Amino acid sequence: MIIVFKPNATEQDIDHVTDRLRELGLKTQISRGEERTIIGVIGDERILENQPLSVFPGVESVTPILAPWKLVSREFQKDNTVIDVDGVLVGGRRLTVMAGPCAVEKLEITLGIAQEVKAAGGSILRGGAYKPRTSPYSFQGLGREGLDYLLEAKRQTGLPIVSEILDPRDTDLFLEKADIIQIGARNMQNFELLKEVGAYDKPVLLKRGLSATIKEFLLSAEYILSRGNRNIILCERGIRTFETQYRNTLDLSAVPVLKELSHLPVIVDPSHATGKWNLVSPMAKAAIAAGADGLLIEVHSDPECALCDGEESLKPRRFKDLMAELQKIAQAVGREL
Amino acid sequence: MIIVFKPNATEQDIDHVTDRLRELGLKTQISRGEERTIIGVIGDERILENQPLSVFPGVESVTPILAPWKLVSREFQKDNTVIDVDGVLVGGRRLTVMAGPCAVEKLEITLGIAQEVKAAGGSILRGGAYKPRTSPYSFQGLGREGLDYLLEAKRQTGLPIVSEILDPRDTDLFLEKADIIQIGARNMQNFELLKEVGAYDKPVLLKRGLSATIKEFLLSAEYILSRGNRNIILCERGIRTFETQYRNTLDLSAVPVLKELSHLPVIVDPSHATGKWNLVSPMAKAAIAAGADGLLIEVHSDPECALCDGEESLKPRRFKDLMAELQKIAQAVGREL
Amino acid sequence: MIIVFKPNATEQDIDHVTDRLRELGLKTQISRGEERTIIGVIGDERILENQPLSVFPGVESVTPILAPWKLVSREFQKDNTVIDVDGVLVGGRRLTVMAGPCAVEKLEITLGIAQEVKAAGGSILRGGAYKPRTSPYSFQGLGREGLDYLLEAKRQTGLPIVSEILDPRDTDLFLEKADIIQIGARNMQNFELLKEVGAYDKPVLLKRGLSATIKEFLLSAEYILSRGNRNIILCERGIRTFETQYRNTLDLSAVPVLKELSHLPVIVDPSHATGKWNLVSPMAKAAIAAGADGLLIEVHSDPECALCDGEESLKPRRFKDLMAELQKIAQAVGREL
Amino acid sequence: MIIVFKPNATEQDIDHVTDRLRELGLKTQISRGEERTIIGVIGDERILENQPLSVFPGVESVTPILAPWKLVSREFQKDNTVIDVDGVLVGGRRLTVMAGPCAVEKLEITLGIAQEVKAAGGSILRGGAYKPRTSPYSFQGLGREGLDYLLEAKRQTGLPIVSEILDPRDTDLFLEKADIIQIGARNMQNFELLKEVGAYDKPVLLKRGLSATIKEFLLSAEYILSRGNRNIILCERGIRTFETQYRNTLDLSAVPVLKELSHLPVIVDPSHATGKWNLVSPMAKAAIAAGADGLLIEVHSDPECALCDGEESLKPRRFKDLMAELQKIAQAVGREL
Repeated sequence: MIIVFKPNATEQDIDHVTDRLRELGLKTQISRGEERTIIGVIGDERILENQPLSVFPGVESVTPILAPWKLVSREFQKDNTVIDVDGVLVGGRRLTVMAGPCAVEKLEITLGIAQEVKAAGGSILRGGAYKPRTSPYSFQGLGREGLDYLLEAKRQTGLPIVSEILDPRDTDLFLEKADIIQIGARNMQNFELLKEVGAYDKPVLLKRGLSATIKEFLLSAEYILSRGNRNIILCERGIRTFETQYRNTLDLSAVPVLKELSHLPVIVDPSHATGKWNLVSPMAKAAIAAGADGLLIEVHSDPECALCDGEESLKPRRFKDLMAELQKIAQAVGREL
Repeated sequence: MIIVFKPNATEQDIDHVTDRLRELGLKTQISRGEERTIIGVIGDERILENQPLSVFPGVESVTPILAPWKLVSREFQKDNTVIDVDGVLVGGRRLTVMAGPCAVEKLEITLGIAQEVKAAGGSILRGGAYKPRTSPYSFQGLGREGLDYLLEAKRQTGLPIVSEILDPRDTDLFLEKADIIQIGARNMQNFELLKEVGAYDKPVLLKRGLSATIKEFLLSAEYILSRGNRNIILCERGIRTFETQYRNTLDLSAVPVLKELSHLPVIVDPSHATGKWNLVSPMAKAAIAAGADGLLIEVHSDPECALCDGEESLKPRRFKDLMAELQKIAQAVGREL
Repeated sequence: MIIVFKPNATEQDIDHVTDRLRELGLKTQISRGEERTIIGVIGDERILENQPLSVFPGVESVTPILAPWKLVSREFQKDNTVIDVDGVLVGGRRLTVMAGPCAVEKLEITLGIAQEVKAAGGSILRGGAYKPRTSPYSFQGLGREGLDYLLEAKRQTGLPIVSEILDPRDTDLFLEKADIIQIGARNMQNFELLKEVGAYDKPVLLKRGLSATIKEFLLSAEYILSRGNRNIILCERGIRTFETQYRNTLDLSAVPVLKELSHLPVIVDPSHATGKWNLVSPMAKAAIAAGADGLLIEVHSDPECALCDGEESLKPRRFKDLMAELQKIAQAVGREL
Repeated sequence: MIIVFKPNATEQDIDHVTDRLRELGLKTQISRGEERTIIGVIGDERILENQPLSVFPGVESVTPILAPWKLVSREFQKDNTVIDVDGVLVGGRRLTVMAGPCAVEKLEITLGIAQEVKAAGGSILRGGAYKPRTSPYSFQGLGREGLDYLLEAKRQTGLPIVSEILDPRDTDLFLEKADIIQIGARNMQNFELLKEVGAYDKPVLLKRGLSATIKEFLLSAEYILSRGNRNIILCERGIRTFETQYRNTLDLSAVPVLKELSHLPVIVDPSHATGKWNLVSPMAKAAIAAGADGLLIEVHSDPECALCDGEESLKPRRFKDLMAELQKIAQAVGREL
């Protein structure tokens, strides 16, 4: 940590800070420049987490040097984390495509889509049973029944299931029925939920919040990891910007940066990011080219009747075409699909 | 709702859409312009909430005409909602200042700050018992014990209490101990929590999410109101932008807009918005000048030792000065403090 | 154009608007819904460009139906525009890679980089002679002399030249010496400069502004096109968001959207967007996968000594490796390099 | 400047950096922490402006300590700059209200508005002769003739004139006819224009760019000041965010921050920021409460016929009412109007 003093800071101000640092067991090194005095803190600066040094008299700014996360970092673990989801590996050389309807609606439709996803080469089935909707008047999901439909689809296709949890009181239900528990963008900083899923070793798909920095995203993963659960898949799904042509702005630069900073697998959701089915294919291909370990894609056999996000769903035939195109991109970047 | 067709849309495309609308009991009116055909939907367009018309063949865009909320709107209720918080009115002519420490830490400190808030003219005591922190390594709050400290402070000063809930499983605890249940910015779209607090008539302080539009903010309030709880206080607390000189960008234009669109009281939190104590006073005054019904301000007797957000806390003496200055602004805009 | 009236709008209000529309030669169609009255305007709504209908009494909102641009639109011209830059085609099946130093510094260095760009398969040489720098104390470019260095590099390698203009008074100079005139992000809405370059048929590389919407970007291109210059290359180069891990957030979703809305070629600048050399390769590959027609890449033989943006420059060896990787991506999406 | 090395940086890497710094005449101080080695640079770090240290091998990050501006800073000049605009002081105890039409249209209208502005207590007349418009099909202003209308209005009312320049080739014209040359938001980083107006001592009104950080804003002012012109008025006019309820998001926190960092006067433009006339009054009052030195307000006698921005113009009667309300706010914060 670097503490910069104001030009008019007194010796007393500087001593006041160094005394406090020493009390906390940290060593300091003072540089007296022409315009500013600077203290460099030597030792584990995480000790200063709850210490508001910037309000000390004479202090101009406080800049941390170390990243605030530890367990998620590439420094802590050099090798990529590869997660075994009921036999499907996420984070290895082979890319993972998770696909399915936004919301689970009817059993037959769900089963049909699952078959199509399987046939096209998808390896995990996605589907929302509990839906976080902006409006209280929108379809809120089938709940427990939706999870049972997914389980039936898994029985028929062998595809593991990923579904979103909204309420910490549903943890047992998800531990029993889902193969991956999804934490949605709106809950990325629902810390009680993070702590809850951190207590088990069930894989967690953690989506980046709409306006979450990469730092905050990794700290939310750190919440889960620090409770003991190491099976975390990060998911970039677009951030909020001023542009209104698409629902959100897919931030693909986050992919190589997350892969550099962390050992966790990183997937991309082009469907929710763009909100438009015709942007899903180009953005899916771009995501793989940028180094993503997989994709989360909405597929629906009848988008006109989808109760949620029909606008962004691919029909099965288009999904199949996309999978063939992704195959080529995967090869071009030295991966498999 | 206005449906615009692409230039190359066929008669069949147009019929397909009008048929579906008629099935749903809606009337339509077609305008055939030089470059585009347009359908205007007559009737309650909220019926179309779960109907993705934009994926119908030939459709270029779909634009809602009506606001998606109802109960929170000024159209639905002309008069301002005034909320009685254990005798303190929020939303009336008199402004409400809620003040206190970011986090409740020690009993004596809490009691001391409460006395100072009371003495300076504050009318509600704020304090966090459960703290949503970006890092798992930051102080997470005293929990239940923190609420008890606040209750003791209430017993000694008579100030009602506002404190933040993080987990729907704590609802009973908050119903018992708090006078206002706060839903923080990170939980503005934690819909399970919104539904939970909507089931009672305990006043709720709902903070705007970091990247929430005003539309989303009002829809979150609608979640609560649609469950039956009409005692909602809206709180603007800064949005996330590119600017890094302050923690967030306080969006004061939201104040007159929220007052125009909704009948609910609107307060402003300049402390969390700016993250810097020296910006709290100018922004507090600006908030009142812009028409806010009150303020949420962090006050701490020893910011250097605060375990949370000491950077933005006012010392009691400065808070007292601010209250005197606010008095003048209040008069200038025809309000009382 | 759709005009929505407030619930309490009077017949007089509605007549007042329809009268004005009729005066302007536009036809109207009125829909009287349950909660709102709506007027649909039939005819060329661009007539209303200078008519602030939203201030008419009783009007709640005014929504345009037609895009505000015309000449740049895919509706106006179905086929892709392919631009001939001194023999190099931009916008066709073959991708265009423009590469070179951020700023032209010394003759030998410029010539050396140009040789490397040529050898690696780059087809156009980029280099800044006039540099728009955030600080007045940063290197501002060599000016006219820099253009001469580029010309000498062109003489030796045959690569056409792209360089940025800052001042309308330099137009003659650029017409004489550059093959493509670049309008930088900061000048995307410098309308006098747009009008100036619009008066000739010299190819223009127009970069998207830091916070420009796609709508504003296309309208800036429309400025140039409406003056007669049809040789416009659009360039996505990152937008400003809250994220601080990279200089800007590369918005690749803009690529397929621009290709859909307009017939103009679209290239991507991953160097300026990210500001970090190690993000250039993944983002360059992602750009091509997303459908871009080419790239603008910074290459410098000695980034440690670059006077401008050394952080984001690729060394020639890395650039060569990238070209080989791009070759594979190009094939995967049916393009050539 | 603080240079942080990666955990695996070698002694050679560290020597390589310190050698370069020593060559440049800077002293260094090395701190070897448990996880990172850090170099503190002692001396004028502005020397490093053109030195990309972050690309040196082993370097993790480079953090400047000093602000990159100098002449605009409060450190450089303690006392507020007060600018004499043809007898009207800007930046003193008395607030300055500049008001008038967005665009100058007809002589009689301009004269009428000027009389109303004068009568209501406005002290400077604003009006656009050259208009930067997003669309090439919008009204582009009367040009030179518009400036003459303003001059006639000045002759009749005595109000000094502020008007926007778009093109450096018009400098002589503006030096002759305007009392304040306005640089608009879109030209805040049109560095050639900044250099041009910096060469004279004519007062300049510099508007913050739509997505300009405060740092960039002050550096643009530094461009002007470093050329010799000290008469700069800064103007906050809203920044671009995701919110769509208003045209831009007025960033009032910028007011106290700019006043703290710089000695230059700061005014606020609530008309362009919000784009809605009914938000102008609350935001104007909030701006003064936040500490602004003045306002820039659009006034039009017939907004329905305004060729530009009629939506945000106050009618003269409303402007007069606002001036009376501002009087009270001014007193409440110890200023005069």
